[in-house]
Amino acid sequence: MLFLSLFLLVLAREAMANVNCNPNSASDILTLDGIRDSLIRQEDSIVFSLIERARFPLNGKMYHHNHVSIPGFSGSLVEFIVRETEAIQAKAGRYENPEENPFFPENLPRPLVHPHKFPKVLHPSGASINMNKAIWDFYFNKFLPLLVTDGDDGNYAATAASDLACLQALSRRIHCGKYVAEVKFRDAPNEYETPIRSQERDTLMKLLTFEAVEEQVKKRVEKKAMVFGQEVTLNNTNGGGKYKIDPSLASRLYDEWVMPLTKEVEVEYLLCRLG
Amino acid sequence: MLFLSLFLLVLAREAMANVNCNPNSASDILTLDGIRDSLIRQEDSIVFSLIERARFPLNGKMYHHNHVSIPGFSGSLVEFIVRETEAIQAKAGRYENPEENPFFPENLPRPLVHPHKFPKVLHPSGASINMNKAIWDFYFNKFLPLLVTDGDDGNYAATAASDLACLQALSRRIHCGKYVAEVKFRDAPNEYETPIRSQERDTLMKLLTFEAVEEQVKKRVEKKAMVFGQEVTLNNTNGGGKYKIDPSLASRLYDEWVMPLTKEVEVEYLLCRLG
Repeated sequence: MLFLSLFLLVLAREAMANVNCNPNSASDILTLDGIRDSLIRQEDSIVFSLIERARFPLNGKMYHHNHVSIPGFSGSLVEFIVRETEAIQAKAGRYENPEENPFFPENLPRPLVHPHKFPKVLHPSGASINMNKAIWDFYFNKFLPLLVTDGDDGNYAATAASDLACLQALSRRIHCGKYVAEVKFRDAPNEYETPIRSQERDTLMKLLTFEAVEEQVKKRVEKKAMVFGQEVTLNNTNGGGKYKIDPSLASRLYDEWVMPLTKEVEVEYLLCRLG
Repeated sequence: MLFLSLFLLVLAREAMANVNCNPNSASDILTLDGIRDSLIRQEDSIVFSLIERARFPLNGKMYHHNHVSIPGFSGSLVEFIVRETEAIQAKAGRYENPEENPFFPENLPRPLVHPHKFPKVLHPSGASINMNKAIWDFYFNKFLPLLVTDGDDGNYAATAASDLACLQALSRRIHCGKYVAEVKFRDAPNEYETPIRSQERDTLMKLLTFEAVEEQVKKRVEKKAMVFGQEVTLNNTNGGGKYKIDPSLASRLYDEWVMPLTKEVEVEYLLCRLG
């Protein structure tokens, strides 16, 4: 029994590898395989966060501009919570990690902790690309109404915390496009230099698009929504085909927003890669 | 295809029912079945939160008292982040919901939003029981070192946010003991009145203990850690038996801490039920 436990522990620790796109230390090498493993692991985080958000109904009041009256603040309740939570996390050094991008980068406080030295592997011009306005827009205005039921259960703080978990997981995944672009450029600089110099977005987008791979990602994410969203009982592994979120919605999320925005990050990154 | 999507959506929405122990509206009835469904759904949230915490190594610096120097604050970085995040969530009304209990209840700000009217079904004396000190203690000092690898990857803010998600999920589950106790008391007041009047903790604990049920919970939680912690690929549903956390640790979490503390909440609640 002890041996079995130790064995499972070793397997569990192996399975935890490669959760980051940015290398953990200067001795780690940036490879496409490493980034791909990280992106696959991040799918799990995204699906978990969607399932957790779907515990609550829409709670639409939270998203109305100035529905709440907060001294010195103009915006919606969810904006207030995200902005304030980001400020706390900035104090703890969240945005020192080049994989993390704030939704409200204006006036973020400085870290109060001695910041960790994250290896700098990105080209400085591309490192600051921030696509979070587009992520915020599609998440709240297009995707969320498809994910949750209508209604109001009063759990505004918990709902907003769930929204933030979804937004951060999506943002992290989409901005990993910078690492994908960097490693692809390093692997074949000659292929990219001409369209970069002539700023040909469409050519770059074509170079970065692999439809067969995208189809696989969509299918895998849909399967993850089924596996993680099923009702697990002791008798069988799926309680009558009920899922906590519609699995096809996870696939659609990737198809319509996650993968296009990741590629947009890649293109933007490459466009300034020689700068 | 449209019919299939609608059908899956209906199933998904059915599967979302019963996520709360506290009734959502005054017309909802408090039943043991309803609470049990909520506790089972909360197991998923707990397992997700553990898997997400295990993405990061221990990051032990965060837990050292005064390792960080924060003006006007004495404590660890994780205490700082949890305290400040709870303050924001209090402003959004989190603790108006009687299922939610803060870890730092001192000096919490008042809600800035018009609070939702949650039905009051608990006895006032028992409603204020807060077992979070014990939860904080076992989580950081006993459980966490078993869950994660040693090491420091510098992701302190993200790690602390994951810790908070675990703590809140565990706290919510354990404090649902108040609802379990209330509904059991209502169903058979005669059975409980004598030991309550003579303040017999052991008798109450025996009345509330069902070993066969506890064994089932432990097995189900372990199975959930396997299902949700597996590596999902398109070819098979478990990538070589690797799990993101050791499944037996989820069972142990329930065995050693979650179920005993839930029953302690139940006993404490009953002891003041006639007050």
